[in-house]
Amino acid sequence: MSIPIPKGFLLAGVHCRIKSDPRKPDLALVMSEVPAVAAGVYTQNAFCAPAVEFDRSRTPSDRIRAVVVNAGNANACTGRRGLDDARKMAELAAAVCGAGPEEALVMSTGVIGKFLPMDKIEQGITAAAVKLGSKPTDLESAARAIMTTDTVPKMAGRTVELEGRTVQIAGIAKGSGMIGPNMATMLGLILTDAPLAPESAQSLLADVVDESFNCISVEGHMSTNDTVLLLANGLSGGPTLVDGEWSTFRDALEEVCVELSRAIPADGEGATHLITIDVAGCADRECARRIAKAIAQSALVKTAVAGADPNWGRIVSAAGSTGVPLDPTGVRLRVNGFVLCDRGTPVAFDARQVSESIRDNRETHVELTLSEGTAGVRFWTCDLTVDYIHINADYHT
Amino acid sequence: MSIPIPKGFLLAGVHCRIKSDPRKPDLALVMSEVPAVAAGVYTQNAFCAPAVEFDRSRTPSDRIRAVVVNAGNANACTGRRGLDDARKMAELAAAVCGAGPEEALVMSTGVIGKFLPMDKIEQGITAAAVKLGSKPTDLESAARAIMTTDTVPKMAGRTVELEGRTVQIAGIAKGSGMIGPNMATMLGLILTDAPLAPESAQSLLADVVDESFNCISVEGHMSTNDTVLLLANGLSGGPTLVDGEWSTFRDALEEVCVELSRAIPADGEGATHLITIDVAGCADRECARRIAKAIAQSALVKTAVAGADPNWGRIVSAAGSTGVPLDPTGVRLRVNGFVLCDRGTPVAFDARQVSESIRDNRETHVELTLSEGTAGVRFWTCDLTVDYIHINADYHT
Repeated sequence: MSIPIPKGFLLAGVHCRIKSDPRKPDLALVMSEVPAVAAGVYTQNAFCAPAVEFDRSRTPSDRIRAVVVNAGNANACTGRRGLDDARKMAELAAAVCGAGPEEALVMSTGVIGKFLPMDKIEQGITAAAVKLGSKPTDLESAARAIMTTDTVPKMAGRTVELEGRTVQIAGIAKGSGMIGPNMATMLGLILTDAPLAPESAQSLLADVVDESFNCISVEGHMSTNDTVLLLANGLSGGPTLVDGEWSTFRDALEEVCVELSRAIPADGEGATHLITIDVAGCADRECARRIAKAIAQSALVKTAVAGADPNWGRIVSAAGSTGVPLDPTGVRLRVNGFVLCDRGTPVAFDARQVSESIRDNRETHVELTLSEGTAGVRFWTCDLTVDYIHINADYHT
Repeated sequence: MSIPIPKGFLLAGVHCRIKSDPRKPDLALVMSEVPAVAAGVYTQNAFCAPAVEFDRSRTPSDRIRAVVVNAGNANACTGRRGLDDARKMAELAAAVCGAGPEEALVMSTGVIGKFLPMDKIEQGITAAAVKLGSKPTDLESAARAIMTTDTVPKMAGRTVELEGRTVQIAGIAKGSGMIGPNMATMLGLILTDAPLAPESAQSLLADVVDESFNCISVEGHMSTNDTVLLLANGLSGGPTLVDGEWSTFRDALEEVCVELSRAIPADGEGATHLITIDVAGCADRECARRIAKAIAQSALVKTAVAGADPNWGRIVSAAGSTGVPLDPTGVRLRVNGFVLCDRGTPVAFDARQVSESIRDNRETHVELTLSEGTAGVRFWTCDLTVDYIHINADYHT
């Protein structure tokens, strides 16, 4: 996968001994040659990590030059010292990029309740500064450096042709499960050379995250460190995007975010199936999202898919559990295209055929249609297997 | 366990071939010699089963003489015919008890999306009528007849000495997981010879359920059939309970419901630990309940207990995920009496000692104290093991 890096961005990933395995990079540095607009969307967890608190206070911005990310230590539940460490880490990153101390952001993921090894972080930032580059392999190197229990690096990119200029978007993300103590489930960083204004970048990112990173689940446990950042340095040239250009750019950005989002449950801990859930026919999008989320987080639905069992009762009862008003007699359910339930009552179907279709495909498609309205949502999750339990129960703090 | 049956109640459990194993009873009949006050609390699932719809329309009541329960078929998602079958089942039960057709209630638990085998149900009701008895073994026989994936029958009782009279309370319940297709997670039936008025019985039951059956979780999947019924026939004699007597009776009823409730996660599918979660120091009880529920339903918390891992970050981050406002610096967490986190930051503790205390005890005690107020709640759940996955993934519809 060779993804071009947007103009004026340089990246690097290095190993600085936060992770014990020397083959695993654990610190990524991103630099923009010119001040970039930056927007952020963060965890809603009351125990948010210092890096989240720090970035939240600094976005949206029009002057970010550097982002530094470490994996292996979430710097969460570390109080005042944790916040000082996050600030220091940002300052070190700014310094090696020739930026002012106010011009950097920071993300952390990994073990909770431990102070950052600031000496290692400092060495890592220095080492990364030397390696900064703008080749596709540098993007991959950064993507690998933010992994925790991920088995594959997660990257996506798009090239957008606008009137008289070409805009690049490239993103990296990490996430696989909230395996303790690697608490920080999900980080995402999207770079673009498109020219955006800070406030519109912020609302655009929030909108797009709502259709992508906010529509995924592995086991439904919200982390302390979830962060998605968007950096836009404007080096594609030309004036700020408006109207038709804006809409074309928005679509491409959403594609990048959806591709990165899907990659997370697809790489979910122990997962053998990526499950796409389409809920339609709802009164509004929030109702659809609540229903989709209830299905996505049901251990019974997830184990049924793991076992290739077309157990529609588990899906329907999860949908009914949310408190969203719905008419049971207006419900239609399809799995991998097979109708299993219509107007809320059983339909004759070949259980063996449906089971084989689940078993033989890496992706499962659940479509639930209600009769309450015209709103809908798409949500992604993964199945729940014995390996998830092994990964999360056989670990010791 | 020998639990006396309250005056004037007769019970029986029989096998009528709804379950394939002839050693497993699958139909319970309960009769009151005189019309009893009846109250009910039901699932909030939009896809509630016909039996729920039927009982809900008939409670509270002051004239119930019979309750019939079958296991092995939930009669859920069965539409109009399902409702007709539930009514017919109640009428058959009323008839064998010499009661009017309006004087019976019905509960079902088991496979979803299949019509009740009414010929077997009818034979079962006839057979049960002959066996009705008032010995402790008859209570156990009824408790066994409502089991699905339960490994033990669930019963509890209390004798309450009031001024000049003795009141008995006896209850049975079933529930272990929402293993498909045995969707109906939880049924409870509480009998008493205390004299209660219908409306006060209803509000009493709702209150007590809120402290017991509504504070348990196995995997958090709300079923279509959840029902708890209270029958009070007044045969202990004397006037309707008031004031001090009411309060004494309420406490005993709550004890019975808590004992039955705890027995459900203790017998949770694949469970090796019953987890009791005490959340204190909240602004109000609903906040405490949301936090306790988030901890109870976290796959990460449950796998940590299964693995005897004192992973306090998982507990704290689950608590922070609910949207309930809380001050992270005011949080104290204890597990089995060991302080793991205080004022939101790590505390030095002997991880091996805490791990051994989890591993060597069938019960785990989690105590989370916040600094938002004085309200609290007690909640019960179980751990999540490989056996839960086997039970729920290796099944085929």
